Amino acid sequence: MLRTNLGLRIPKGMRDLLPEEIAVQEELEEKVLALFRQWSYQKVLTPTLEYSACVQPDVDQDDLLYKFFDREGHILTLRPELTIPIARLVGTRMRGGEFPLRLCYGADVYRNTNVRHREFRQLGVELVGSDQELADAEVIALAVEAIAGLGLENYQFNLGHMGIFSGLMLEAGVDEGIQAKLEEVLARKDMVGVESCVRQSGLPGRVQELLLRLPHFHGGEEILDEVLGWSERPAIRAAVESLRRIYQYLNDFGVQENVSLDLGILRGFSYYTGVIFEGYVPGIGFPVVEGGRYDALYADFGIPQPATGFAIHLGNLLEQFPLPNVEGADVLVYGSDAKQVIRRSQALRALGKRVEMSLGVLGNDEAGKIARQKNIAQVLCVDGESL
Amino acid sequence: MLRTNLGLRIPKGMRDLLPEEIAVQEELEEKVLALFRQWSYQKVLTPTLEYSACVQPDVDQDDLLYKFFDREGHILTLRPELTIPIARLVGTRMRGGEFPLRLCYGADVYRNTNVRHREFRQLGVELVGSDQELADAEVIALAVEAIAGLGLENYQFNLGHMGIFSGLMLEAGVDEGIQAKLEEVLARKDMVGVESCVRQSGLPGRVQELLLRLPHFHGGEEILDEVLGWSERPAIRAAVESLRRIYQYLNDFGVQENVSLDLGILRGFSYYTGVIFEGYVPGIGFPVVEGGRYDALYADFGIPQPATGFAIHLGNLLEQFPLPNVEGADVLVYGSDAKQVIRRSQALRALGKRVEMSLGVLGNDEAGKIARQKNIAQVLCVDGESL
Repeated sequence: MLRTNLGLRIPKGMRDLLPEEIAVQEELEEKVLALFRQWSYQKVLTPTLEYSACVQPDVDQDDLLYKFFDREGHILTLRPELTIPIARLVGTRMRGGEFPLRLCYGADVYRNTNVRHREFRQLGVELVGSDQELADAEVIALAVEAIAGLGLENYQFNLGHMGIFSGLMLEAGVDEGIQAKLEEVLARKDMVGVESCVRQSGLPGRVQELLLRLPHFHGGEEILDEVLGWSERPAIRAAVESLRRIYQYLNDFGVQENVSLDLGILRGFSYYTGVIFEGYVPGIGFPVVEGGRYDALYADFGIPQPATGFAIHLGNLLEQFPLPNVEGADVLVYGSDAKQVIRRSQALRALGKRVEMSLGVLGNDEAGKIARQKNIAQVLCVDGESL
Repeated sequence: MLRTNLGLRIPKGMRDLLPEEIAVQEELEEKVLALFRQWSYQKVLTPTLEYSACVQPDVDQDDLLYKFFDREGHILTLRPELTIPIARLVGTRMRGGEFPLRLCYGADVYRNTNVRHREFRQLGVELVGSDQELADAEVIALAVEAIAGLGLENYQFNLGHMGIFSGLMLEAGVDEGIQAKLEEVLARKDMVGVESCVRQSGLPGRVQELLLRLPHFHGGEEILDEVLGWSERPAIRAAVESLRRIYQYLNDFGVQENVSLDLGILRGFSYYTGVIFEGYVPGIGFPVVEGGRYDALYADFGIPQPATGFAIHLGNLLEQFPLPNVEGADVLVYGSDAKQVIRRSQALRALGKRVEMSLGVLGNDEAGKIARQKNIAQVLCVDGESL
């Protein structure tokens, strides 16, 4: 049936991948997954569809989910990320595995937002069962190496801690409403929003000054001492010391110079409990890597285990790489006798050649033209060859 | 938030893939896609979500689709197959390409049916822009080689033609209602249903005999002559001669012995217009390969081009293969000094080793136990090593 205009189109936020585009995506994905493998992470895959009852309790922005009813009346969701589905998997079919467990994935995720891509590839790791700072440092170092391994330059990672923001909020006596609003504008790095939110808060001057300062706590280890100057509250001190140890481990991993401390970063998913980090590359205005520690999520699936991990938004990185030429076959085989064309093509394939077989009778000029158009290295006419 | 029972479960028909399962799937997929590549097919990928207006007009069984509304009120569908989305792609972003165009894919498809898997992997090819029997023979031979290349034995392909069934229906003067019912029971190979449907049809005895004979037209070239004994109608003669040429080409490809002619086969999608085929392996009660010629579909997308292709249901084949042992890292590095553990792990990774880094302090016995549990070949204690 002839398609309507809508039937010829692709839904908003979706995209087709042409041969040269899929070649880039696969090459990048293979590089990153090979690195994850080298660090002893094992690949798993969860399904595209999950019950909302699985993913939704920890996804704040309810309306970013693609949701619909199944036949039984349950709400299904296209996975918006893989951290929660993997927690479900570890809590069920993989229960009984040895901790720490290192898992990785490469899969498409779906977010019904107004950004350019609503389906995009994510590559990530989950390190489950260790509360050590060394575990956080391992995943951060791995994220940095993954981005570096793609050949990207001038990338920048920022490292923060959920405990510092929430501790400062408590210290300053900021109420929940203002805290939620402030969290939102900070997560978006909306400085005008931060200023307006703080000015309208009615909080004491010293607290306002601190809140305005928060997005600018960005740099090396010295900012950790500065934070302790503001507050010696035990939760804040613990977070600061934890960040300090992680930052020192990053030096041992040889990646510290690519990572800045940044106490103003906050992440969009509600499951983060400790260290959080994000990675940027020039030319992309949002993080291409997001990660952190989430020590409460696994308990929700019946296995109280600390965990840390990250995801790389591969889909958003594709445009940073030049598209290769579409590689054509090695040989175009043609001739007037189909039997001979078939046999010769099969014989060349058996030798490992990539062979395009002509389906109709071609003249030599025509064969040459097709080979040029399709980027085929060689033409071979089998007329006159014996079988 | 602690999950409800539903939140711990996976939706019906979905599955998780554990490391050993994904290893099998990827190995099979790589083998098949390498073969497609050798035959000069180029990989493309369409999105998970399509407008129903794109896929639905050619999908008969409406209720097998996962459908829901988008924000704009349009109906979205999880792709139930890739032939139609690829026609959309060729009709839009790839318009202007050189025909014949050889495309292939490996992607998950979604069908909301009561079968075991509602999300499953399909690998397939589309050969667009040739009406030659050689094109049909090429894709059939490629399908046979793909199944053979997976190491499966005793597989069996059946080859039929839509034109023979519809021509015989016309010849016999069967009305549309009975034809639709008969098509359905034949597609399901429901012989009791065929018999009951025919007996209730009120058709003349000779026609009834022919209809009951249809599922048994199965064998070599001799059945083609038998069909011509029933009818010399030009459409039937053309279909028979087309099948005969394709069957002879299959001999030239060296795969004829794996293919039987079977005039009772019919396919579930309505777009097939010519030759159709299906592949079976022992132990699986439904086809693992489905394909055929569909010469009208591309016109629906504004580019009238004949086409032929097939899909392999890889998801259903996985259980035919033994699961490998989960491969552990090459080395477990441990020691009392984290800095030394990090440096040594990084150095070994730089040498190409797959390294699991201990995150806490381990005794030698404990390290050995972990290595055995995780199938890690070697343990390395760095205590006493100099940095």
